[in-house]
Amino acid sequence: MSRDRLCVVGLGLIGGSVLRAAHRAGWTVWGATAAPDDHVAAASDGVDVESTVDAALQRAAAQDALVLLAVPLPAVDDVLAQVARHAPSCRLTDVVGVQGPVTSAVRRRIPDARYVGGHPMAGTSASGWAAGSAGLFDGAAWVLDADDGADLGMWADVARLALDCGAHVVPATAADHDAAVARVSHLPHVLAAVLASVGADGGPLALALGAGSFGDGTRVAGSRPDLVRAMCEGNRAALTDALDDALGRLGAARGSLASTGSLESTLRAGHLARRAFEATRDGADDGTLRVDLTGDTALERLREIGRAGGRVTALHGTRCTVTL
Amino acid sequence: MSRDRLCVVGLGLIGGSVLRAAHRAGWTVWGATAAPDDHVAAASDGVDVESTVDAALQRAAAQDALVLLAVPLPAVDDVLAQVARHAPSCRLTDVVGVQGPVTSAVRRRIPDARYVGGHPMAGTSASGWAAGSAGLFDGAAWVLDADDGADLGMWADVARLALDCGAHVVPATAADHDAAVARVSHLPHVLAAVLASVGADGGPLALALGAGSFGDGTRVAGSRPDLVRAMCEGNRAALTDALDDALGRLGAARGSLASTGSLESTLRAGHLARRAFEATRDGADDGTLRVDLTGDTALERLREIGRAGGRVTALHGTRCTVTL
Repeated sequence: MSRDRLCVVGLGLIGGSVLRAAHRAGWTVWGATAAPDDHVAAASDGVDVESTVDAALQRAAAQDALVLLAVPLPAVDDVLAQVARHAPSCRLTDVVGVQGPVTSAVRRRIPDARYVGGHPMAGTSASGWAAGSAGLFDGAAWVLDADDGADLGMWADVARLALDCGAHVVPATAADHDAAVARVSHLPHVLAAVLASVGADGGPLALALGAGSFGDGTRVAGSRPDLVRAMCEGNRAALTDALDDALGRLGAARGSLASTGSLESTLRAGHLARRAFEATRDGADDGTLRVDLTGDTALERLREIGRAGGRVTALHGTRCTVTL
Repeated sequence: MSRDRLCVVGLGLIGGSVLRAAHRAGWTVWGATAAPDDHVAAASDGVDVESTVDAALQRAAAQDALVLLAVPLPAVDDVLAQVARHAPSCRLTDVVGVQGPVTSAVRRRIPDARYVGGHPMAGTSASGWAAGSAGLFDGAAWVLDADDGADLGMWADVARLALDCGAHVVPATAADHDAAVARVSHLPHVLAAVLASVGADGGPLALALGAGSFGDGTRVAGSRPDLVRAMCEGNRAALTDALDDALGRLGAARGSLASTGSLESTLRAGHLARRAFEATRDGADDGTLRVDLTGDTALERLREIGRAGGRVTALHGTRCTVTL
């Protein structure tokens, strides 16, 4: 039954929600955190919280639990040192949100780690244990690293955790993941900050006239800046590319408006892109297929499915159902 | 009782909602539209719809009604020609959303017009009569032009319409209004279009990973592009300034990230700006005062109130209550 044991390190919004969701699905769960507020809040909700991260990891080693890292990127290296000391042979995954740096840190700290990186695409502008819920991942995408070298049995274990939490699994390489989230998760935070500042530059009158479009466009600027920094700055190279793309498109819009008076091409392209996103999100399924999770080409097949916008929606032993 | 008669020209989202809201407040209302879909939809909802705009305006002239223009900017000039022909002495206001060009067109077409421009800051990404509702303006800001030369009695009439529709009134010059909405209403549409396109450039994987921040940041890119174009392109000079401000801030963020790895100043400034917006929106009132709507300095006082983020929340004869 060791496959149903989960040790969560970090009990903020995401870690706390995974712990609740896995518990809801019948897993045996415990956690630990270095943040006193989250410790107190989780314990007072009746959760099995170890007094220290070391103690939680020792228990994970004794019971062969899956260990989930749910701490901000700047804390990852220190926590990995603790994992290396107390639970080096445990299966390991994470929900940090930037895969390249975490994968590098795991390889450096625990060269033989049984590790598959992950990233559930869910969140709110609130943070901490109290903001979490068992339903946070219902219907969400949960990216799992499908780079060459991943252990397919381990991959299936983490996929089952994600599915049990209510998510669907999107397989991707770390590099493809980081490039994609730079565009759809990190750039939105930078644009929200810029929009909020340009609005405030207009003084009290401008802020008094802000309504739906300004409220929506600046919502994530209400998130804790230190958490947003950790996420965005950890994905520096890919986010710089996304910012260059945005600057190019915004500069073209400015040039066209000032010279010809027209924003047609900017607004038409954006409208078509939004419609494509809505079609993706509303999940007009093009069908399902079964994919074997064994053999030399399994990871390559999974990566191709992710690149095409497909997702894993169920596991059956060594096979999975893929929805396209 | 002529003060409670309203003729609405254009029965889309905004015009249709004003008509319903004024009706709810006890006004005698009728409307007309050149859009067959809106005509049929409004008539089948039991609304008093004249068969032509000319007929609606002739009735307004006969009954000394307030005439409200609720057509997109490109249609304003033609409708003003009809007003000049059939109802040149009626009190006139609008909800077009860009005050400079409408004010100029009114002066050109109807030099002696009794006109006060207006702009309710409410909307949805949907459009047309069917998308409207009597409650659309509840709690919203409704900007009224307070440039020198406005007739204060006429100003109070339009303010009463806005208050009866559930809005509060923000007095501003046309230039101040246009500069403010460029920042908090038009720029958000351009940034949403740019963000949607940058996301779609990442292919199906990126769109499959788009979640809350991407969904919120691109929502208004789902609006009808022709309506967004009319609004944004009609405010060309002020929007160009706002785009330059955004390009400067976004370029600074890109430079800082690429050179030092830090987004601190961008994200901190954006967070403080968002907090200021939330404080404005949640209306932590600093008190109320009574302002006299007669005398040489009344318009100047109203403009100062608007610039400071204040709003008119009630009318009492020739005085109004202002909330700061």
